[in-house]
Amino acid sequence: MYMEHLQQSFNVQYNFNVFFTAALFSVENDLFSNFLAGLNPAKAVKKIFFVVDEGVANAHPDLSQNIKNYFSKYNQTQLVQDILVIPGGEIVKNETQYFDKVLEAVNTFGIDRHSFIAAIGGGALLDMVGYAANVSHRGIKHIRIPTTVLSQNDSGVGVKNGINYFNKKNFLGTFSPPAAVFNDEQFLKTLSDRDWRSGIAEAIKVALIKDREFFEWLEANADAMANRNIEAMNYQIWKCAKLHMEHIRSGDPFESGSARPLDFGHWSAHKLEYLTNFEVRHGEAVAMGIALDTIYSQLSGRISSDDSQRVIKLIQALGFELTHPLLQVTAGNSPILQGLEEFREHLGGELTITLLTGIGSGEEVHEMDTELLKQAAEILNHQANLQFN
Amino acid sequence: MYMEHLQQSFNVQYNFNVFFTAALFSVENDLFSNFLAGLNPAKAVKKIFFVVDEGVANAHPDLSQNIKNYFSKYNQTQLVQDILVIPGGEIVKNETQYFDKVLEAVNTFGIDRHSFIAAIGGGALLDMVGYAANVSHRGIKHIRIPTTVLSQNDSGVGVKNGINYFNKKNFLGTFSPPAAVFNDEQFLKTLSDRDWRSGIAEAIKVALIKDREFFEWLEANADAMANRNIEAMNYQIWKCAKLHMEHIRSGDPFESGSARPLDFGHWSAHKLEYLTNFEVRHGEAVAMGIALDTIYSQLSGRISSDDSQRVIKLIQALGFELTHPLLQVTAGNSPILQGLEEFREHLGGELTITLLTGIGSGEEVHEMDTELLKQAAEILNHQANLQFN
Ligand SMILES: NC(=O)c1ccc[n+]([C@@H]2O[C@H](COP(=O)([O-])OP(=O)(O)OC[C@H]3O[C@@H](n4cnc5c(N)ncnc54)[C@H](O)[C@@H]3O)[C@@H](O)[C@H]2O)c1
Ligand SMILES: NC(=O)c1ccc[n+]([C@@H]2O[C@H](COP(=O)([O-])OP(=O)(O)OC[C@H]3O[C@@H](n4cnc5c(N)ncnc54)[C@H](O)[C@@H]3O)[C@@H](O)[C@H]2O)c1
Ligand SMILES: [Zn+2]
Ligand SMILES: [Zn+2]
Repeated sequence: MYMEHLQQSFNVQYNFNVFFTAALFSVENDLFSNFLAGLNPAKAVKKIFFVVDEGVANAHPDLSQNIKNYFSKYNQTQLVQDILVIPGGEIVKNETQYFDKVLEAVNTFGIDRHSFIAAIGGGALLDMVGYAANVSHRGIKHIRIPTTVLSQNDSGVGVKNGINYFNKKNFLGTFSPPAAVFNDEQFLKTLSDRDWRSGIAEAIKVALIKDREFFEWLEANADAMANRNIEAMNYQIWKCAKLHMEHIRSGDPFESGSARPLDFGHWSAHKLEYLTNFEVRHGEAVAMGIALDTIYSQLSGRISSDDSQRVIKLIQALGFELTHPLLQVTAGNSPILQGLEEFREHLGGELTITLLTGIGSGEEVHEMDTELLKQAAEILNHQANLQFN
Repeated sequence: MYMEHLQQSFNVQYNFNVFFTAALFSVENDLFSNFLAGLNPAKAVKKIFFVVDEGVANAHPDLSQNIKNYFSKYNQTQLVQDILVIPGGEIVKNETQYFDKVLEAVNTFGIDRHSFIAAIGGGALLDMVGYAANVSHRGIKHIRIPTTVLSQNDSGVGVKNGINYFNKKNFLGTFSPPAAVFNDEQFLKTLSDRDWRSGIAEAIKVALIKDREFFEWLEANADAMANRNIEAMNYQIWKCAKLHMEHIRSGDPFESGSARPLDFGHWSAHKLEYLTNFEVRHGEAVAMGIALDTIYSQLSGRISSDDSQRVIKLIQALGFELTHPLLQVTAGNSPILQGLEEFREHLGGELTITLLTGIGSGEEVHEMDTELLKQAAEILNHQANLQFN
């Protein structure tokens, strides 16, 4: 009686490259220019607009001038001369004034869907600018130039962006792959030791559930990385980025179904970051979360104590703390048990946690035993104290 | 010397259905409930939150109560009892307070990625709610229940959303297909004559460039539609939605490349809507834009004057105005020539306009002759005046 229903069905293809280089905006380096030239359909007018993390700008005072020199040599793409420098770190996702600044620039400088917005900075700045670019004119092409280890090996090569709203992390955001990512090792050299180290936790995470050989490489190169050896760091970033990209590609890139993101060790890490008001860095919290879920995997009979001690040793060799007082399971309403409950709600009712079944392999479980969790936290607390005595 | 670049490449599949019904929230109608039940993975808690166009709520005073009754019968999905009623029309896209209201509800009622946001209203409300849903938690599933002809046959079955910002139409927005669309004929009955008529312009548009047979059907049923015959309207909507959906599917759904959207007659229509501050409805402007580009197609030797007169006759039979004083090419800086220039810029430098080569077929051209445009506008002006004398 009514008109037959209509079925819509289509595929959208997404492609982008992650390039590795040093001194991206040195005039001798034509990588960036070649990328822009390759994308440029002959007749389209193209502009590029840069947003730079203040922490990066301060540590690299010549950066803006280098970009200007670069585009006076490679001038097929028109550089918007006003380079927007805004704070890096979580503040750029917390305060909407920075998001607004990008939108205003889009409007003022006439950045359209044939133009690019390039962001140079840590994961927080990339998340905010990526979001602003994706919602402006239904999606301005966006280039990511990550400047921290975490953003080069994980967040910057992924497909998510976002800002915080109502005091909730990533309350607003979209899935939107970048046009390209450029990982420039020069930026890493000016990172604080904490930020240099922090991102390595993501490599431990992905190695532990996906790639035993990479885990062994991390063990062999932990000291080199702890001593700020750039070659070791470069390989770690490349391999970790590769594993993250493969996971996204082979899974459910926009998380529309139930496929899990790569989040071993993350459920307690998220809670800890919140509880410490982000005083504990993401990677630092992840290292502690990995330690916790590793010991839990051992206590629940999934891995040997030799294997779990290898993980703990690696975490310590890199200079991470093993645990935090807030991760202890105490009597009553422990924050960490609350965190577990919040994670269950976040997943829509059913808990899914990855545990280790070996070094390089994981399995999903749908329950965590409170008693074992308490023991795991205590063991870590004990090991951490040993270290300092 | 540097690490080899990494290539990311994946496909994302999008599927949704457009259903046709009457009295969607009558308790006898299990269509909506069946859809929700079908999507519901056994263990996930699912909520649904409704946003309703005030124009619709006023014309259908029982709607909120009907929805509540519906969900007390079909209670596998939990209805958020606060139904948000906000103005319809362009104001809901112009003033960010309405967008904010949806975000606040998402936060207050804990609407997550396992929940739905359903929007009932005209194209403007659907555009705003679709945008809010898509950016909340990186995409809450969104159900569209379009209540105007234009939103049932065109905007509501597509993949775009958006709000206006900096006084610019759709400055913010994303591409994001809905989870489903429900076209309910009951809503059409309370439309003003202008809104009933306006959306039919999109059917003329798509018929003229894609489907001669449908054009002939429109000719045969113009009087019935002008007289508010619901069966004729239903078929028109179904067929027009189908053609739009096929175009999206077979082209470049998210407009990442250079494939053109279905915008015959639209370049001048957009300008006219702006110039009249949206006093002239989108469909009304499109009808005038179609008339203009049809006469231009004739004057440039692409179609016969018999064919162009059939188009003009159909437009008039439906009760549309043929042209507007602001569409005349006058000496100096005519707004319409400005509009052409703005359209060129919008396309990134190269103009692409669809013209007719027959009834049911179009071709793309990259230039418009000012003198012919002037003549076309004058001819329409003359024909419009004849009608009133
Ligand atoms: N989108 C995703 O998939 C995803 C995944 C994981 C994490 N994240 C987000 O990433 C953010 C954390 O990113 P992060 O760890 O890169 O830290 P960050 O962006 O918070 O930056 C940390 C600090 O380092 C400074 N900085 C950045 N690069 C520098 C450099 N080369 N030299 C000197 N100082 C520099 C910044 O100014 C900032 O003060 C969080 O907001 C998190 O939510 C996103
Ligand atoms: N997303 C897209 O792809 C796309 C495409 C074309 C147009 N649009 C947008 O659609 C909007 C226009 O939509 P529209 O033409 O549906 O009009 P509208 O949404 O502006 O609504 C017009 C008026 O009709 C009222 N109304 C709606 N349904 C009613 C009903 N059943 N009974 C009584 N009154 C009712 C509304 O309250 C409003 O006052 C514009 O903002 C335009 O940009 C979007
Ligand atoms: Zn992480
Ligand atoms: Zn239209």
